Amino acid sequence: MSSIDESCEACSPDATALTKGSIVEFLELNGGWSLSLDVDFDQLIQTFRFKNFSEAQDFAVKVGDLAEWAGHHPSILTEYGRVTVRWWSHKIKGLHEQDLVLASKTESLYRKRTDAL
Amino acid sequence: MSSIDESCEACSPDATALTKGSIVEFLELNGGWSLSLDVDFDQLIQTFRFKNFSEAQDFAVKVGDLAEWAGHHPSILTEYGRVTVRWWSHKIKGLHEQDLVLASKTESLYRKRTDAL
Repeated sequence: MSSIDESCEACSPDATALTKGSIVEFLELNGGWSLSLDVDFDQLIQTFRFKNFSEAQDFAVKVGDLAEWAGHHPSILTEYGRVTVRWWSHKIKGLHEQDLVLASKTESLYRKRTDAL
Repeated sequence: MSSIDESCEACSPDATALTKGSIVEFLELNGGWSLSLDVDFDQLIQTFRFKNFSEAQDFAVKVGDLAEWAGHHPSILTEYGRVTVRWWSHKIKGLHEQDLVLASKTESLYRKRTDAL
């Protein structure tokens, strides 16, 4: 996948942070995601489960490729049987519309994977 | 890489935990590694730096492949420009000789990568 754009919308200090209302609406519609409790700003977090390390790593790479395509990068924690993904916009220390889009795309990558099993 | 062994030495509850002396000696000889301060058991941690996300991800995959080869798995946190690797033995909640070996091999993978630049 090549990048959609040289510059990522969410990567500017002038990017518009989402309202609490938009975040709550996203969380209600996307039950797997929650707000991280261990940072002092809004950050989406989800842990995805796998049957071993190899499957976890394959998914981590797919999420990384998505990030490269978008020009916007999450943190990806790979462990035996699970991958924890966190999306947020560093420059605004919070959530931008693009984070919600990429969180949804991350979920789709996971669903596609499990649908194929 | 295929696995060296079906069963990993450090993965049994009967595995022998390292003495504090052995751990201190390893840390003195391998300056990049330290003991993690955010867990209540002995765990080796090191953050490796890269110039972008793609290089970080490539390294994370190499460390994952090393783990699969050994049949013993660390946690690998991939972020833009850095990868944090933690080695420990889950079953003994501490460090086993194999963790030191794999930490050294992780460092070698990083050195090989930077030597090649």
